Amino acid sequence: MMEYTLGLDFGTGSARACILDIHNGQMIATAVCPFEGGVDGTYLDQHNPLLARQSPLEYMRSLEKAVKRAIKDFEISGHDVRNIIGIGVDATGSTPIPVKQNMQPLMALPEFKENLNAFAWLWKDHTAVTEALEITEKAAKDRPEYLAKCGGSYSSEWFWSKIWHCLNTDPEVFEAADSWIEQSDFIPAALAGIKDVSQVKRNICAAGHKAMFSNAWGGLPDKEFLASLHPALADLRDRLYDKAYTFEEKSGYLSEAWAKRLGVLKGIPIAVGALDAHVGAVGAGVGEGKFVKIIGTSTCDIMAFPQSKAPEDFPGVAGIVQGSVLPGHIGIEAGQAAVGDLLNWWVQGVLKKEPGYHFDLTKKAGELRAGESGLLALDWNNGNRNILGDQQLSGLILGQTLATADYEIYRALIEATAFGALKIIRLVEHQGIEIREVIATGGIGHKNELFMQIYADVIGYPVKLVENPQTVAIGAAIMAAVAIKKGMEGFTDVDQVIGKLSVTSEKVFVPNEREHAVYAQLYELYSELHDAFGRDQQIKLHHVMKALMNFRKSASDR
Amino acid sequence: MMEYTLGLDFGTGSARACILDIHNGQMIATAVCPFEGGVDGTYLDQHNPLLARQSPLEYMRSLEKAVKRAIKDFEISGHDVRNIIGIGVDATGSTPIPVKQNMQPLMALPEFKENLNAFAWLWKDHTAVTEALEITEKAAKDRPEYLAKCGGSYSSEWFWSKIWHCLNTDPEVFEAADSWIEQSDFIPAALAGIKDVSQVKRNICAAGHKAMFSNAWGGLPDKEFLASLHPALADLRDRLYDKAYTFEEKSGYLSEAWAKRLGVLKGIPIAVGALDAHVGAVGAGVGEGKFVKIIGTSTCDIMAFPQSKAPEDFPGVAGIVQGSVLPGHIGIEAGQAAVGDLLNWWVQGVLKKEPGYHFDLTKKAGELRAGESGLLALDWNNGNRNILGDQQLSGLILGQTLATADYEIYRALIEATAFGALKIIRLVEHQGIEIREVIATGGIGHKNELFMQIYADVIGYPVKLVENPQTVAIGAAIMAAVAIKKGMEGFTDVDQVIGKLSVTSEKVFVPNEREHAVYAQLYELYSELHDAFGRDQQIKLHHVMKALMNFRKSASDR
Repeated sequence: MMEYTLGLDFGTGSARACILDIHNGQMIATAVCPFEGGVDGTYLDQHNPLLARQSPLEYMRSLEKAVKRAIKDFEISGHDVRNIIGIGVDATGSTPIPVKQNMQPLMALPEFKENLNAFAWLWKDHTAVTEALEITEKAAKDRPEYLAKCGGSYSSEWFWSKIWHCLNTDPEVFEAADSWIEQSDFIPAALAGIKDVSQVKRNICAAGHKAMFSNAWGGLPDKEFLASLHPALADLRDRLYDKAYTFEEKSGYLSEAWAKRLGVLKGIPIAVGALDAHVGAVGAGVGEGKFVKIIGTSTCDIMAFPQSKAPEDFPGVAGIVQGSVLPGHIGIEAGQAAVGDLLNWWVQGVLKKEPGYHFDLTKKAGELRAGESGLLALDWNNGNRNILGDQQLSGLILGQTLATADYEIYRALIEATAFGALKIIRLVEHQGIEIREVIATGGIGHKNELFMQIYADVIGYPVKLVENPQTVAIGAAIMAAVAIKKGMEGFTDVDQVIGKLSVTSEKVFVPNEREHAVYAQLYELYSELHDAFGRDQQIKLHHVMKALMNFRKSASDR
Repeated sequence: MMEYTLGLDFGTGSARACILDIHNGQMIATAVCPFEGGVDGTYLDQHNPLLARQSPLEYMRSLEKAVKRAIKDFEISGHDVRNIIGIGVDATGSTPIPVKQNMQPLMALPEFKENLNAFAWLWKDHTAVTEALEITEKAAKDRPEYLAKCGGSYSSEWFWSKIWHCLNTDPEVFEAADSWIEQSDFIPAALAGIKDVSQVKRNICAAGHKAMFSNAWGGLPDKEFLASLHPALADLRDRLYDKAYTFEEKSGYLSEAWAKRLGVLKGIPIAVGALDAHVGAVGAGVGEGKFVKIIGTSTCDIMAFPQSKAPEDFPGVAGIVQGSVLPGHIGIEAGQAAVGDLLNWWVQGVLKKEPGYHFDLTKKAGELRAGESGLLALDWNNGNRNILGDQQLSGLILGQTLATADYEIYRALIEATAFGALKIIRLVEHQGIEIREVIATGGIGHKNELFMQIYADVIGYPVKLVENPQTVAIGAAIMAAVAIKKGMEGFTDVDQVIGKLSVTSEKVFVPNEREHAVYAQLYELYSELHDAFGRDQQIKLHHVMKALMNFRKSASDR
């Protein structure tokens, strides 16, 4: 029996389709379609660098194109489209879209087609900084339990900050919206032809991590709390949702119209959606003891472990949500706000070089040993997402001499992100959660082996690189497989499906013990800088520059 | 009556001659001759980046060439060479030269001509780091009074460190040297044809600032102290000197041989020498209440005030020496180890641009206001000479975002050197010494008006730029005038001569009060970083990045 699922992955700049054989995990076909419009599909405002919006219509156009291409390859290689039995979808988030009751996005109405506030508010839109601060303050005072599940501070990237900012700055759009829906719920519902927003099954992944949804307090934040922000937000709550689902649920079935457009069977089930990072972790084989890092312009860390082993909520991670990563598991999300972005800043923003210069810098930086640059940096050019959850932080580089070169700073920036990664791992371990494997996926690992080796040397665990760049789309196809098989004969649990279907082709970076020993000491210095600038405490730093000089000296003596 | 003096200025890369009318301060002729050999006249060792040596013979060759050219112009413009009535000489330091009893430099002997240890040990030679640390430690324990006059730490650039390093690493050269003589003493003595090193009048400027010479303890460091370093150094003391002189003394009279070579009258007096920075201050009009900054690759700060107003010795400056700047005055020297070097590091070392890129960066940086970059830096890429006197410090830049550009960092580096400059001024003022004027001279000020304006805005005093780049050579000519006129009719005091002859053409940079108000707050943050990394104390830094963000925000709102 031949069975395949279709995974649809919406990244920041494109839609990707992949078709997975759910009996052996083989990827049969894949295709990508970049978004059009704006700058690489994102609409910007030259007067406001914090703004980033996208067109929901463009999601559907690019999806169609990507799926058609994948299906063409699928058929050319002798496969039968009738064996595609389900669809899984992941998307970025929090990317809320204002919609009418009938699921029409506001920007599709003539009166709003030029108004970017009526578009999808892309995850990296930071216009709502003020609202995020106010939500954090109010919650810290009145609803500390809300903050406990999202790492101690509510982000400007998230659902309520953005919607409140819309209310504050463009009440006309806010008034016109019957509801708001995440991109990761909008697309499955659109494919299913759902015409009433109240009928959409919202996903727990976006709800729990971005909208402060938890069954512990009856769903979304209560009306009293929302009213304390603004009465209109309390009213909006009635037009949102009070349940949220994991991807083992079906969000609907492919509509006849979309079946025709895509060229697949109508009525095949569509799994409840999820956020791209979490789905990437699924594709990379997330499960108990596995710490999955999705490393791109920023880094997202994902863990899932059985509910029975759940620790107390703890501060410092971005979110702790039941079912957000895997059904029946507790999901933890953490992250670093600038990783690839930090290296791109150095190469393109400061040095003004072409992207190819990454290669030159990496080559020279690879000739250095741990400590040899004499430099130490903090990876906070875009604030600290975790451990501190503080946007009001910035970058730092120290240890420069008059001989310090560009590639030494490049290496120091890589090391800084690795130290930041280790801080998160140490925090999770400190809760008694065992980490047996670090799995890395995302763009950078495939481009830069030095980056991966530094991570292994800093962290001190082998770091496995999941080599297939389609990992997220494969994760989406796995979601579909789980949603279909759940309750059927032969299905035991989600871990089993993931174990069979997730991407296994791996390259392992093993720590060099001597380098790790040096990095262990440099990590202590990093931690001192981290706490000196990131926490409200007195600290001694007089030894830091002297220690770095000694590391430089011993590294060149080795 | 026509009277002129010849000023000879030895910089790091060239000899400069100038002929000054000592009745009206007009410079009649000037010429420069770059040093030959090595790299721009300095011999380096590819295995030891700390080494920097020069040839004493090259000093005399280039001097002859520069003087002949100046005299040619002098005569062409209708002046009579017989009216040149004296010579003044300044040179770099501490630049000690090992010599035989007959004043022949060791490197002029066939057996040492290939041995760089037998050459002049240029001021910026840092091979003697270990010896400097040991001298500082020993003096701190046994002779704290020695350190009090040289700012609390003895430098690897100075006389005893270098000679001891020679003894430790090349005893053959040390044994062969009958004495060691500073470049600023060697050249006047060579011109006077002095053939016995014990007859050379050593200058108080180099002796006091570089060799721990003070009449307070009977001249050079006592034998017991030197023996505690090494017995051979105690023996050497007998072959050095026990008196030191200011430039109002004549070191000798031009020999017949040199008179012929230069084409001036034989027997004209030669003033006792001095160090280039101090002589630059003389050329720029140093005197009571005037804080002179010689700003180049590094910065040297010079003050002189009447002995009657002398404060107690205080730590934090490089030296406090009687008569070192002006006869009858107390001289204070302080400095910053990297100023122009710091900007060159950024442009050429990191960004790998041509020197012309300074101009591009300056243009863009000039469009920013105080605080607008959101950055703060420490100017310690070459250690901190003053206030802390600590080579084991390094650079720091903080406040970077993903939008931070190269010109913003450039501006932050200029500001860091200005904050460092202000720290020294505040220290001096804290001793009750009044500062009425800041006078800037040296290369950068002429190239970069933004640099000067930032200094004025940071310091909060008008900064006067002495516009003549021949200021140091003019200072040397003034020294000759003082040495000649001392004791003659009409001579009242040295201030009067300087007042008449020093360079007066000035451009004044007036502080912008609004910028100064911002910088006053940024200076507090700079001071916190300075103390956190430079002093052994606990400090809070949690507010620093947040404060910088607020400055950035208010600057763009202004």
